[in-house]
Amino acid sequence: MQSQEQKSNKSLYVGKEVDSLDAVLEAHLPEAELAEVRRLLYGKVPASLPISDAARKLADERQYDIKAFKFDAAPEQLRKPRVVKIGLIQNSIAAPTTAPLFEQYKAIEAKIAELIDAAGSMGVNILCLQEAWTMPFAFCTREKATWCEFAESAKDGHSVKFVQEMARKHNMVIVSSILERDSAHGETIWNTAVVVGNHGNIIGKHRKNHIPRVGDFNESTYYMEGNDGHPVFETEFGKIAVNICYGRHHPLNWQMFGINGAEIVFNPSATVGALSEPMWPIEARNAAIANSYFTAGINRVGTETFPNEFTSGDGKPAHKGLSRARDGLLVAELDLNLCRQMTGRLDLYARSFTEAVKEDFKQQIIRDPSLGN
Amino acid sequence: MQSQEQKSNKSLYVGKEVDSLDAVLEAHLPEAELAEVRRLLYGKVPASLPISDAARKLADERQYDIKAFKFDAAPEQLRKPRVVKIGLIQNSIAAPTTAPLFEQYKAIEAKIAELIDAAGSMGVNILCLQEAWTMPFAFCTREKATWCEFAESAKDGHSVKFVQEMARKHNMVIVSSILERDSAHGETIWNTAVVVGNHGNIIGKHRKNHIPRVGDFNESTYYMEGNDGHPVFETEFGKIAVNICYGRHHPLNWQMFGINGAEIVFNPSATVGALSEPMWPIEARNAAIANSYFTAGINRVGTETFPNEFTSGDGKPAHKGLSRARDGLLVAELDLNLCRQMTGRLDLYARSFTEAVKEDFKQQIIRDPSLGN
Repeated sequence: MQSQEQKSNKSLYVGKEVDSLDAVLEAHLPEAELAEVRRLLYGKVPASLPISDAARKLADERQYDIKAFKFDAAPEQLRKPRVVKIGLIQNSIAAPTTAPLFEQYKAIEAKIAELIDAAGSMGVNILCLQEAWTMPFAFCTREKATWCEFAESAKDGHSVKFVQEMARKHNMVIVSSILERDSAHGETIWNTAVVVGNHGNIIGKHRKNHIPRVGDFNESTYYMEGNDGHPVFETEFGKIAVNICYGRHHPLNWQMFGINGAEIVFNPSATVGALSEPMWPIEARNAAIANSYFTAGINRVGTETFPNEFTSGDGKPAHKGLSRARDGLLVAELDLNLCRQMTGRLDLYARSFTEAVKEDFKQQIIRDPSLGN
Repeated sequence: MQSQEQKSNKSLYVGKEVDSLDAVLEAHLPEAELAEVRRLLYGKVPASLPISDAARKLADERQYDIKAFKFDAAPEQLRKPRVVKIGLIQNSIAAPTTAPLFEQYKAIEAKIAELIDAAGSMGVNILCLQEAWTMPFAFCTREKATWCEFAESAKDGHSVKFVQEMARKHNMVIVSSILERDSAHGETIWNTAVVVGNHGNIIGKHRKNHIPRVGDFNESTYYMEGNDGHPVFETEFGKIAVNICYGRHHPLNWQMFGINGAEIVFNPSATVGALSEPMWPIEARNAAIANSYFTAGINRVGTETFPNEFTSGDGKPAHKGLSRARDGLLVAELDLNLCRQMTGRLDLYARSFTEAVKEDFKQQIIRDPSLGN
């Protein structure tokens, strides 16, 4: 092992955030170590896919980060490959949080339209936007006034119509995570993913199942736990589900989507990097391993400042993503035939959990008799 | 980012395996990047604990790898800290697989005795040995003859008596994972963790719940899925459970130990690095995040060769651990007060799973109507 003094690589880090874990490793590790570290961190490293000219031009002009990879599955005799290309978009907000609300929305929409066009040029079949992409992540303000006006109908809200138009334009399924206002049920607000089919039709929606209550930060100030179970959406390109943000901490949430047949589970997020960034690659990948489906997580980037100061779980603003700081599009080509599972013993757990939720449940504890009473 | 040509660090990797991910990162990354990469990979990095003189002497003499860390919890007003020191031992076998069986066992036992003494000198309260530590990992041979003779009574087998003696000697709870022969029930063989209390008493045992069937490798050739649920053992130093090896792939298995009150869940393993090494840090840490308890995984190291050649899932022999290749002891000091959880919605999943295991279960699938029939 080399001592500190022998290190001659210059720091990439002076005065700024690291762009990504991969960029740091690529810059500093010799070839053989880089390959082994990647294997230890990622398992089989996927091959790169070419970036379309249109996407590359956009990336250069706007300093967007666009990357594309390909995951293979072994060929089978009785099933043809079911290759699908998915995309994830991460973005910062595009106007100050003090601008008029609809102006804020339209500024983000313009940026998203560019990135969806880039995804279209890459042949993306299923695209997922980040959580509450239509607005700043204002829940950390604890203020209802103004911010709740971003909530819209999941049937015909302005962002829903925009996404339907883009889905038609690119023959693309789009998962659009918004703040939903349910005017037919007491103006209830939900944290909802609208799933739009590739013909621009709304296939359905799913409401976030698990709500964070972390330190003094509680999103149930705004909306409650979802009431529509674990729907899986059967699209032309595969069966998909959406585990919204904080739901990624709950393995049972991931698993019920798998039990309902999901082949790809998206995890759109809006969360603070300093708090939860080390957990993202653990949780989504663990779910993929445990449930034998693909998972695809995305978080917003940038720093959002609000008129009234707030403190979050750790008092810091939000950031992170593809690169950890830039807007971007991530594309991956998958063969859904890779999804298959066994050895789960679900009947055992169905019985155990049913016992465990009873009021008089006795934990299975074997106490060391030498402890006395 | 620097180009390949600008990299001046020498490769640590020519002609040998990397010792550990951390060693590679420490050798090559500048200070600031190293800190940020560690934060991204590990979250809050624990402080180091001093190594005892006896442990350091043993490490030097035998080239064992001995490391110690400390995890803090914020102080509380109504509960005192519940600090406990845990230890994990990884080891290679100590005699050729062609030697007489009891000689093989005694050679491993001698090495384990040294490492347990080192753990004792470090003040370890609860120690976990690797899966089937008493024998080579012979299940990949598919041969029953000879290897099954390593199976012993979980009440008074030779390794059980040895562990009881060591537990008494060091006032230490020891989790001892062995091949169990249940002569009272048709000579059944189980993959069993025996939990020995700090007074040398047997508190109880747990039999591995999930058995690998990976490619052409099937451990149910030797034993079946465990039949004793998810017991938690209440010891003088805290409530512990054991998720043996392949059970780490199953989030429900981890979760039932949590529901039964576990504060630390050990995961003794014997598995092939090339196949599953990238998954270990994902699965055990995901379980810790999801269930708000401590997890502690350990795998055997070294290369084991057998008289009759075998192919495993990927045809390669087993290796990995603390360092990825050397015998070693890992010690961590924990405050069990860090364990607390909420937002789980277990009742929802108890109902969902109960439905899901019914023969006529209908998956919750919302099909795009434009797909037709």
